[in-house]
Amino acid sequence: MPAGELRHTESSSEVEGEAWVWAQIKAEARRDAEAEPALASYLYSTILSHSSLKRSLSFHLGNKLCSSTLLSTLLYDLFLNTFSSDPSLLAAAVADLRAARERDPACVSFSHCLLNYKGFLACQAHRVAHKLWIQSRRPLALALHSRIADVFAVDIHPAAAVGTGGLFGHASALIGASATILGNVKIGDGAKIGAGSVVLIDVPPRTTAVGNPARLVGGKERPSQLEDVPGESMDHTSFMSEWSDYII
Amino acid sequence: MPAGELRHTESSSEVEGEAWVWAQIKAEARRDAEAEPALASYLYSTILSHSSLKRSLSFHLGNKLCSSTLLSTLLYDLFLNTFSSDPSLLAAAVADLRAARERDPACVSFSHCLLNYKGFLACQAHRVAHKLWIQSRRPLALALHSRIADVFAVDIHPAAAVGTGGLFGHASALIGASATILGNVKIGDGAKIGAGSVVLIDVPPRTTAVGNPARLVGGKERPSQLEDVPGESMDHTSFMSEWSDYII
Amino acid sequence: MPAGELRHTESSSEVEGEAWVWAQIKAEARRDAEAEPALASYLYSTILSHSSLKRSLSFHLGNKLCSSTLLSTLLYDLFLNTFSSDPSLLAAAVADLRAARERDPACVSFSHCLLNYKGFLACQAHRVAHKLWIQSRRPLALALHSRIADVFAVDIHPAAAVGTGGLFGHASALIGASATILGNVKIGDGAKIGAGSVVLIDVPPRTTAVGNPARLVGGKERPSQLEDVPGESMDHTSFMSEWSDYII
Amino acid sequence: MPAGELRHTESSSEVEGEAWVWAQIKAEARRDAEAEPALASYLYSTILSHSSLKRSLSFHLGNKLCSSTLLSTLLYDLFLNTFSSDPSLLAAAVADLRAARERDPACVSFSHCLLNYKGFLACQAHRVAHKLWIQSRRPLALALHSRIADVFAVDIHPAAAVGTGGLFGHASALIGASATILGNVKIGDGAKIGAGSVVLIDVPPRTTAVGNPARLVGGKERPSQLEDVPGESMDHTSFMSEWSDYII
Amino acid sequence: MPAGELRHTESSSEVEGEAWVWAQIKAEARRDAEAEPALASYLYSTILSHSSLKRSLSFHLGNKLCSSTLLSTLLYDLFLNTFSSDPSLLAAAVADLRAARERDPACVSFSHCLLNYKGFLACQAHRVAHKLWIQSRRPLALALHSRIADVFAVDIHPAAAVGTGGLFGHASALIGASATILGNVKIGDGAKIGAGSVVLIDVPPRTTAVGNPARLVGGKERPSQLEDVPGESMDHTSFMSEWSDYII
Amino acid sequence: MPAGELRHTESSSEVEGEAWVWAQIKAEARRDAEAEPALASYLYSTILSHSSLKRSLSFHLGNKLCSSTLLSTLLYDLFLNTFSSDPSLLAAAVADLRAARERDPACVSFSHCLLNYKGFLACQAHRVAHKLWIQSRRPLALALHSRIADVFAVDIHPAAAVGTGGLFGHASALIGASATILGNVKIGDGAKIGAGSVVLIDVPPRTTAVGNPARLVGGKERPSQLEDVPGESMDHTSFMSEWSDYII
Repeated sequence: MPAGELRHTESSSEVEGEAWVWAQIKAEARRDAEAEPALASYLYSTILSHSSLKRSLSFHLGNKLCSSTLLSTLLYDLFLNTFSSDPSLLAAAVADLRAARERDPACVSFSHCLLNYKGFLACQAHRVAHKLWIQSRRPLALALHSRIADVFAVDIHPAAAVGTGGLFGHASALIGASATILGNVKIGDGAKIGAGSVVLIDVPPRTTAVGNPARLVGGKERPSQLEDVPGESMDHTSFMSEWSDYII
Repeated sequence: MPAGELRHTESSSEVEGEAWVWAQIKAEARRDAEAEPALASYLYSTILSHSSLKRSLSFHLGNKLCSSTLLSTLLYDLFLNTFSSDPSLLAAAVADLRAARERDPACVSFSHCLLNYKGFLACQAHRVAHKLWIQSRRPLALALHSRIADVFAVDIHPAAAVGTGGLFGHASALIGASATILGNVKIGDGAKIGAGSVVLIDVPPRTTAVGNPARLVGGKERPSQLEDVPGESMDHTSFMSEWSDYII
Repeated sequence: MPAGELRHTESSSEVEGEAWVWAQIKAEARRDAEAEPALASYLYSTILSHSSLKRSLSFHLGNKLCSSTLLSTLLYDLFLNTFSSDPSLLAAAVADLRAARERDPACVSFSHCLLNYKGFLACQAHRVAHKLWIQSRRPLALALHSRIADVFAVDIHPAAAVGTGGLFGHASALIGASATILGNVKIGDGAKIGAGSVVLIDVPPRTTAVGNPARLVGGKERPSQLEDVPGESMDHTSFMSEWSDYII
Repeated sequence: MPAGELRHTESSSEVEGEAWVWAQIKAEARRDAEAEPALASYLYSTILSHSSLKRSLSFHLGNKLCSSTLLSTLLYDLFLNTFSSDPSLLAAAVADLRAARERDPACVSFSHCLLNYKGFLACQAHRVAHKLWIQSRRPLALALHSRIADVFAVDIHPAAAVGTGGLFGHASALIGASATILGNVKIGDGAKIGAGSVVLIDVPPRTTAVGNPARLVGGKERPSQLEDVPGESMDHTSFMSEWSDYII
Repeated sequence: MPAGELRHTESSSEVEGEAWVWAQIKAEARRDAEAEPALASYLYSTILSHSSLKRSLSFHLGNKLCSSTLLSTLLYDLFLNTFSSDPSLLAAAVADLRAARERDPACVSFSHCLLNYKGFLACQAHRVAHKLWIQSRRPLALALHSRIADVFAVDIHPAAAVGTGGLFGHASALIGASATILGNVKIGDGAKIGAGSVVLIDVPPRTTAVGNPARLVGGKERPSQLEDVPGESMDHTSFMSEWSDYII
Repeated sequence: MPAGELRHTESSSEVEGEAWVWAQIKAEARRDAEAEPALASYLYSTILSHSSLKRSLSFHLGNKLCSSTLLSTLLYDLFLNTFSSDPSLLAAAVADLRAARERDPACVSFSHCLLNYKGFLACQAHRVAHKLWIQSRRPLALALHSRIADVFAVDIHPAAAVGTGGLFGHASALIGASATILGNVKIGDGAKIGAGSVVLIDVPPRTTAVGNPARLVGGKERPSQLEDVPGESMDHTSFMSEWSDYII
């Protein structure tokens, strides 16, 4: 996707919203389905057959997290009802998609993040679990948490509050692969958590937590060059090098 | 569950045993099914439809670990037969449940641990794999080990001997998420292994192994305040802080 | 399997090739199916019903990586067609099997590695994803990568090139459990990556990367005794100790 | 269930409607779940976890009719959306449930008909297929028809219009087991079609079609005693005898 | 299988019993698995991995009759417990297997009948449903009945009593394909019910019911040559001709 | 599809062959996927992702006939290998598709017949079972036959030889729903078998067998007007009436 497609004026909030992202996702999926017949069935069932982002996301999460004792239809219903009753959850998902797309050079498309980023999917499902937790529906929150940990190997305690607009996925990510976030810590907006990290403390906004147990790098109090790097203008290799540079 | 429900006299060993824990688990599941209809089907199929803990655990492990080439009915049979032929395996599961419930503040109920703690489930399945291993049924032990690693992302070599009464789960745990325990090491009773740790050496009783590769903290020779903290009287936040304190 | 069965003259390349390894695998599976009826169905469906190694591997990967939205038959077709069109992929798998069998003392049989080593299976599926990536079939490469990460908890970016003949599995491995390999790094032949490691830099041949982020140990420039240890003559315990020695 | 529970005044249409039937179904399911733990999981997932009859029916049909290429979540969505957009479909289902419960002595409860009567389930799914057909969404109508025929062995062409309030199930039934209804015939209200019948002609209201090809018995023009028999006061045996009497 | 293998002295009841039939089944399955690798996995999972006929039959019925809302493990447990608590059910299955093998020329082996005869499998599952029915566990009996009708397209009301030693399968059969047996009728020992028949009346021993609704042919009061035909000495073609002769 | 699309000169055998039918099927599926997003995933997985008709048919049959003990990948392989080794099987499928499309007014498209006609699918799978039978691979033939009977409720003994170019489906059909074809009878080219029929005798070419047991109508020796009716010029209703006319 040419960078131009992502450009839009900050003032036009409507264009930046869910409708715009959903239109991008469908266009990407249609293009990929056309180019790759072997993937078309998957793209139609997960994206192109749905009338809205919240249905597509609920469907995908329901099918990812289901088991022989927790049926996909039950989970689909739970996600769809929760997303419908609290629009802030979908707004957070859209913010996450946009942040990943704009700042993570490995995120080649919105649909790639929606379908394949374990950190993104784990985070959206976690927010539903967190909402159930604060509604005192704890057994359901814990059952959902258990499935998130099983399927995505990302372990975020339902009591943990996770902000929006973070980076997800494997390369850098709000939440890297095999990350563990414990207890009632708070993960700030735009924070990042390295793969395999175990987070036991709050992570301030735009700060990175890495290691086991995690220590903080970057952020306002621990300045690093990472925040200054515009995702779009950065090639993948140099990003990797820079990241490993400032971590070690 | 009020703390009082967990109180029992040390002298009445019968009350403390499997029957008492199983009665607690059924009562918890009945309460949760009543409060949360969306979870009731799951709770009936995994707990309330079963006549004993060993059937419930065998059913749950069989459904968790099955695949298209290793059927749930075959695994259910394997677990049920092994638990029936060696009562020490179920006694170990009961000890694990009681230890987690009493000492892990994140463990809100026995049924939560039974259904959702990857470390707990991985450990029970591992003990069956270990038994097969020492019976020289190694191909079956290795196939079971492979499924445990796939599903729970916890990798304990079948040759490793794991003691009883440990802490499980995400917060602190005999066995944290994404832990790896290699070769013929010995994990002592009440030991803990941090999330993401790779254990290559014996972990003495009541000692914690953390990091990759794991180093030991706490225990008789490395005293820490963790052992002194009574689980029931400790709130989650402070526990987290204390834990991260003594690790770093 | 007695060591003698693995002995063969270096000059007879035909004997060492795919046909010989496949014959070994079938013989092992037949022996294990005979000894363990509970495992026979699994061994017949994954190995003994197939006419070639590439069919067995395609079947096993298809069934491991399938989901409700990516059917096993579709993935089986994808693997079988890719292995058929590029023989170097199967040659690499054979080299990996032989390296694991000869140098990893925990690898008790070829069939054990083929069926149960997450690192081995993740690596074979990754090579197919990498091939799709360099053919610019990126959406399919990323979807496959996502399934590899979900199922094996091993995260290798499709852009990463992975050499052949490495060590796999849990004990030591080209690719340990919960390993993450990012971006367009290069993993050299015979390299090893520790469990839970996050690799951001190239790993030269016969070098080991461990930790998060990974640092290099061993190799030509960082000599260690590991390379000198003949796998067959080493018992499991001492290997573990040696490994933990040189890491810490 | 005592007959008294079914008594209600004809004038109180509200009581007779969907809400009343749904309340009965939930009460029956709760009673059966209490009495039969082995069935409780099934009853909670199909009935007790749902907030309305249309959700329960959509869930049950979705799970009955799904296949590896037509996912349960997709079908659940299709049924729920269609039932929501056309309330007459659910009203027809309620009329069918009440007719079966009042007139078929083999129908021991509403929930039994809802969960287990192939004729009832096939007819509700058929009405959705028929609606798609008259909306010119024929490929979807035919795909749904194909699944209905596969799963329920009841073959009703999507062009056929089926009235409401018929008898379903095995003993006497609007639609008996293995029935085939072809082309654009019309099945009148309260008509019955015998097991194994092949219907090629219109079946007037309150008329029975039996045989292959089906001939008509009973009805206004072919009076028989069947219509006069009050279902509630009739025991199963005598009904069977009477039925076989008037057929032969 | 040579006819000689089926020969046994009437006096040695032990040899004729379950143990002997089970030994035959295992021998047949081993022979077929050897000859047909593509079928070996199926034969091992359904027969050769089991320690007894009742486990094999419970496993096969559980996997045949399961659905996404009625799990195979639950059904396996139900069948195994019921067969264990009432040995007459397994004795009836053995009698059915022996009758089919001795008198039905299309029944080429015991294992063929056990695995593939819909009539045989429907009848064994029906006897369990019938037992639940007379124990007043009617909701479970009806749910099981519903699955039997869905999967085998054979509809036997749980109230119907079915004798032992009948002929099953497609060619002639106690219970032919798409048969319907209603209400509390009684099917006598050695009776036969033609494919597609709808049985509303008692079928005396060694009598055949055919047609829709079924009429009786053969039996003590309606003598026909069918009973006189020894199954083993009859070739398939002539049997077919004879059967169609006396029906038409 | 306008009739014109089906017109082609009889002399151009190439156009009429597999390639032409496969092109039609893909065009129809593409049109339907475009018009009906809810069906697109199904159409891509079953048709549009495949490179040939034999792969599409093998995939569809494998997914239709699989069970938890007979995996879809195994069946896909069996169908693909058999279709590849004997081109006459695919030629017969093409002839069946063309006959249904040209003569059955209910067959609205080739893809509808390929995906949804139980008679068509049962017949193609039966021909593979029949081939296995005459190759003396009888246990596999019988296992496949059992699955065909379970899934399609169409029971054709593997010994029966079925000709090509027949009519399939529900309205008129070589093989109607719930048909049973026994023993080594021969079903001639262009013959039809009514729904629910039980065929015990040979059915000559272009003859219809109806009833239980089936009697013959039409054909050279029993002339009827059915053969004279050109399928394309006949509307569905009149066809139904005519059919029911000549049957009764």
